Amino acid sequence: MSDLGSPDPTLSTRPAHAAPHPLADLALPAEAQDLLFREARTANTFTDEPVTDEQVAAIYDLVKYAPTAMNIQPLRILLIRDEEPRARLLKHMADGNRDKTASAPLVAVLAADTDFHEHLPRTFPHFPGAKDNFADPVAREQTARFNAALQIGYFLVGVRAADLAAGPMGGFDAPGIDEEFFAGRPLKSLLVVNLGRPGENAWFDRLPRLDHHEVVLSAGA
Amino acid sequence: MSDLGSPDPTLSTRPAHAAPHPLADLALPAEAQDLLFREARTANTFTDEPVTDEQVAAIYDLVKYAPTAMNIQPLRILLIRDEEPRARLLKHMADGNRDKTASAPLVAVLAADTDFHEHLPRTFPHFPGAKDNFADPVAREQTARFNAALQIGYFLVGVRAADLAAGPMGGFDAPGIDEEFFAGRPLKSLLVVNLGRPGENAWFDRLPRLDHHEVVLSAGA
Repeated sequence: MSDLGSPDPTLSTRPAHAAPHPLADLALPAEAQDLLFREARTANTFTDEPVTDEQVAAIYDLVKYAPTAMNIQPLRILLIRDEEPRARLLKHMADGNRDKTASAPLVAVLAADTDFHEHLPRTFPHFPGAKDNFADPVAREQTARFNAALQIGYFLVGVRAADLAAGPMGGFDAPGIDEEFFAGRPLKSLLVVNLGRPGENAWFDRLPRLDHHEVVLSAGA
Repeated sequence: MSDLGSPDPTLSTRPAHAAPHPLADLALPAEAQDLLFREARTANTFTDEPVTDEQVAAIYDLVKYAPTAMNIQPLRILLIRDEEPRARLLKHMADGNRDKTASAPLVAVLAADTDFHEHLPRTFPHFPGAKDNFADPVAREQTARFNAALQIGYFLVGVRAADLAAGPMGGFDAPGIDEEFFAGRPLKSLLVVNLGRPGENAWFDRLPRLDHHEVVLSAGA
């Protein structure tokens, strides 16, 4: 919003990325803001402490309530912990992501189910035609990818709600992972995420965020 | 995960969508879980209470810290409050979304900036070649859409952190909105969201969520 965001050097000389906003106007307590957003960081190293199935279940049972279009819920979460499937995963990771993916206590491949519409008679029961709305496979895959990405946003917040660190990675061979783990199934991998407690030197310095006036625009009358 | 999620009728006869998970394994306090996920609902009606620019600024200054690939931050938020731009927006909304979009105190058009890479010399400064990584416009738009969708997930959580209700809508003419509000600019609208305090009969019954075993899969050794 141009009238709000114009930088005014008389007000602050702190760089925007280092300046926590006053807590006014948020109902969420400051400690929870820190846990989920302000202090949470993308981790590149992890301790050996396991991430349990119960922790993943608690995360899913929190974030499943966040909204998707027509309640389609296309996100699928493939957990990789053991040595054999992990070796199969590492083949498809970009070089710079391989070591940390090898050492994280748990890795999640986040994917979109492009046949999400099969669940709609149960998950959107008041509209019997819902499933037929998604007959076109090209449009359906687009819808699956977009809504699964929303749910990935919720999931990463949920990981932090469990006091775990996430290391999301886009650098991998998606068709290779799909063939390796999802052959014959309608799943498309979108993101690979390392999960665990942060280890030594787990993160780099916080990178600059865009200023409010660069992101929030106003359609004036 | 098949060994965790199999429904066991001896344990519970409550439908999954009505059964809050025990709070074990989450560091986020129960009240914050309720505010952001368990009690929060998609609203279809709103009170007249305004949503202020300061509230939007507080939301952005919280959710901006959540991660995007290479810190690209492609989400843009167009705020529509006044009568004239709102009338221009309503033309492009699906019939079933028009009345609530007309009456919400504030409407946000959430869009992806497909020229996000112009900011990378500042926002990803340790890798001078970052901008050139995104020279291909087709791949760049895909990256923009995916990461903006992640950020929309964060944004919807942030709206709830401000104790506001969101009404996200996918039913609109996206090219029409882009031409109407973003002509000549590299922005692609992804979602339109009504914002405000919930009004009378603001929501329908909670729809069923998928069970854990339908979503969380395990790559066994």
